[in-house]
Parts: sequence; structure tokens; C-alpha cells
Amino acid sequence: MERFHRNERIAVLLKTMCDSPGETFTLGNFAEMFGSAKSTISEDIDIVQNLLEKFDLGFIESLPGSAGGVRFVPGFSKNKTRTILEALCQDLSNSQRILPGGYLYMLDIIYDPRKISEIGYIFAGHFYKREIDCVITVETKGIPLAFSTAKYLGVPLVIARHNSEATDGPSVNINYVSGSSKKIQTMVLPMRALKRQSRLLFIDDFMKGGGTARGIIELAREFECEVAGIGVVIETLEPSKKLVEDYVSLLTLNIVNEEERIIDVKPGKDWI
Amino acid sequence: MERFHRNERIAVLLKTMCDSPGETFTLGNFAEMFGSAKSTISEDIDIVQNLLEKFDLGFIESLPGSAGGVRFVPGFSKNKTRTILEALCQDLSNSQRILPGGYLYMLDIIYDPRKISEIGYIFAGHFYKREIDCVITVETKGIPLAFSTAKYLGVPLVIARHNSEATDGPSVNINYVSGSSKKIQTMVLPMRALKRQSRLLFIDDFMKGGGTARGIIELAREFECEVAGIGVVIETLEPSKKLVEDYVSLLTLNIVNEEERIIDVKPGKDWI
Repeated sequence: MERFHRNERIAVLLKTMCDSPGETFTLGNFAEMFGSAKSTISEDIDIVQNLLEKFDLGFIESLPGSAGGVRFVPGFSKNKTRTILEALCQDLSNSQRILPGGYLYMLDIIYDPRKISEIGYIFAGHFYKREIDCVITVETKGIPLAFSTAKYLGVPLVIARHNSEATDGPSVNINYVSGSSKKIQTMVLPMRALKRQSRLLFIDDFMKGGGTARGIIELAREFECEVAGIGVVIETLEPSKKLVEDYVSLLTLNIVNEEERIIDVKPGKDWI
Repeated sequence: MERFHRNERIAVLLKTMCDSPGETFTLGNFAEMFGSAKSTISEDIDIVQNLLEKFDLGFIESLPGSAGGVRFVPGFSKNKTRTILEALCQDLSNSQRILPGGYLYMLDIIYDPRKISEIGYIFAGHFYKREIDCVITVETKGIPLAFSTAKYLGVPLVIARHNSEATDGPSVNINYVSGSSKKIQTMVLPMRALKRQSRLLFIDDFMKGGGTARGIIELAREFECEVAGIGVVIETLEPSKKLVEDYVSLLTLNIVNEEERIIDVKPGKDWI
């Protein structure tokens, strides 16, 4: 009494699993959804697995045991990642992006849903093995990226702010020193925002000195949480010594030469 | 010389189109991708269309003419939308959400990737006919939601901030009066962030007096842009007269009674 054709089941399986990365589905879940035998679903999942591989979209992980099932893990191959990062470098190298003071205009990239989804996919693929409970960022520019990464890891997002609001409830404040400008800044996180003992992934758009990442580590400590990963889109080559050690950057910004209108940005060392 | 089975094509078609809402694909695009005849692809697309209907995920729009093709439009049926909104109301009615001052803690909802994706889907389905060029929000709490809506509409996101930064380049500042507290606030948007003559969709988490929406309309005017839609997750019942008229709210917050620990929140009038 199959109510769905195989081609329909495969399509819905692929979409359902990709839309809920990290979520464990049992064969029973799908058998019920389609009114099919578990053995049929198992064959379907092999086809989906094969498709994910062919189209370089990630893979399906099987979890054994009574709580077992299958779950989708997003991620691109190293080749595809490099292609994406090289396109990003080319886009960023456009000299019209140079702003007074040698800054780089990149809001059009870090707020672009398609580009940010790709980058979130890359981060999720890179960090999923670290058993992240929650993605954290500091307002504002890293939020779309952190949200996208959280979505592909299937975990909640938490946003630290610079000021608290009445709608936050009781909150924890910390002061931290910006790594590059040495200015003292404040970071606030509502008490309710984080479960104790969580493993956090800090995601941001840009790292210069690493002061913000350092601040997040201190904030996490107040919540008895651990920063289990740090990922940024761009780090600057200088200062070469950052305030944090274990981090991943997708791109390295070597130089912005305002006078000669040259931007030198390359994929980071982990991706070459 | 078909390289892919129908079940593989259907699955990849569904995923490709759903991942790029609003993007027009020609039959030729897909024929090339799969090495199949256009007539075959056309049958495949009928199956995908049928699946989207069965699973209440949106529909495929055919665009005639030489620039024609097919594109995916996200959206849920009214029934499914109502079910989602009712679940949201139940979640929000938990008295533990009440904060001192009668505020409602809802950061866990408005930063939750799964819930926010559903809400973004609802907004995209509601507003896609208005030919939106760009989604706009004001930092911070509405950003995940606005990003998600932009993604499902297939358009860029723009974020107005309260202060400008060196990485923004030249920017436009406006002052606006908050509708409820009557405080004067500032909104900044980089000159490069918006193309002139764009049609904007303003998305936010909460509307009380409507002052922020009013501010966005004024900011848009400085860029010769038009606010073609306004969507918020929750509006408060009072004040009943907002500073803007044409807006859509998913939920209405009737009352938060701090003493009796009662929260009364219902799906908005457009969804009943």
C-alpha cells in the first residue's frame, strides 16, 4: 500500500533531511511518513546518500543502537570550498571596495543570503565534529553568518550585545579590550540565553587582533561554557599574533593599499 | 544518454529550486545539468510541483516568453500557517517568560534557526507578490528573521544601525522618534547599501507604536526607495493606532499581566 512513488520519496527525503541538519531521523519516522516498509526506506536513503555525494552537498551519518537513525551532515568537498573562496577573493579584490582609511566595504557580501548560506555551510562542515551546542556572535555584522552556521549545524544562535535591554532580563556584562584599537568595550548576554556546560562556536565576519574572540571566551567562562571553536570569514595578516590561538579563517587579508588601489586577499592556509 | 534516474532528477530539482527561491531556471538549464531532453525535464517539474503541493511547501511559477522558465515561490497554506502561529502563541504564553516590568523574554524564539526559518517562509509567501528588491531591518533582534525572509524571497538584506562605522563608508543618518517611549533615536545606512528606486520590505520582531517602521519609511525616502511592505512577528494591542498603516503582524499581544502571571497572545487578524 505505497502511497508515494520512489521518486517522490527520494525527493522528500533529501529535502527533509537537508532542511534539518543534525537532526536524527529513524527509519520508522520515514516509514510512517510514506506508508512504506523500513527496508524500502533504507534503499531510498542509500540513493539520497549517493546523490549528496554526486552533488557535493555533504553526507548522511548512520547512528547505531536503539536511539539510532540517520542524520544529514552538511559540508562541501575541499575542492568546492576552494572554488567558493577564490570567487569570494576575486569579488573582494575589486578596488571600488576601498574606503577612506584603507577599510574594505563588504556589507553587500556579509548580508547576501546566498553567499552567507554557502559560508555557513562551509563552517558547519568544518565544525560539526566538535559537538557544538550553540553558535555565538557579537552584534551586528556577523549575525547573518552566525545564524546561517547555526541553521546548518541544527543548533540555536545566541547574540551578545553591547548594551542590555529590558527585554533581556537579568544579564551578565563583561568588559574586554579590542585587540587592535585597545579600546575598552562591553559585551552583554542575558542569563537565560545559555545553558551551563554548553560547547560554543564563535562566528564572526572579521578578526584583526582577536580581542572580540578573547572577550567571548571570558564571557563563556561566566556561564561555565566552553568555546569549542572559532571561525571568521577574514583575518588580517597583521598582527600575526592574535589574542586567541585555535581559530579558523576562510580568507587572509594581506594588504589594502589605499594609494595604489590594491587589495590582496587570499584563501586561508587551511584551504589551500 | 540519460545520466540520472528520474528519482535522482526529481530530488535534485526539488532541492535546487527550493534552495534558490525566486530564481528563474530555464528548462535548458536543467536539461544541461542532467543531460536529459527538455520534454523529460518538463515532466519532472510537474512531479516536483505536485510534491510541493502535497507537502504544503509552496509552488512553482511558470514565466512565459523568451526570458521564461520556472521559479519556486515559498509559502505555506493558511491552515499550516495558523498551526505554526498557534504553536508559537502557546510557547509565548508560558508565564516563565514574564520579565520585571511586564516584558516578555523571547530571544530563544527569535534566534532559533528552525522557528525563524518557518516565520521567514510565512513572510516570504505573504510578500512575494509585492516585487520586493530588498529586505531591510534595524539592528539587532530582527536580523535573523529579516535574513531568513530575504533568503526565501531570493533578495539581499540591508541592516540599518544605530551608529556608523569606518567600514560603512559614507552613510545617511536620520533621527526618528520611538512610537512608544517618545525617545529620539538615530538610524544609519551606508550610501552604498541601497540601489535607488528599490522596493523594500521592512521586517522586525516587535511593533508597539510603529516609530521604527516610520523611521524606515523616512530613511527609504532619502534613498529614493519605497517601503512596499512591513511585517512584524508581534504587535501590541495598545496603542491601537500605530504610526504606520499598511503592515502585517503574525501575532497580537493583548496583555502581559505581571501580577497574575498571565500572557494573552493570539494569531493576528490576517491569519484567523
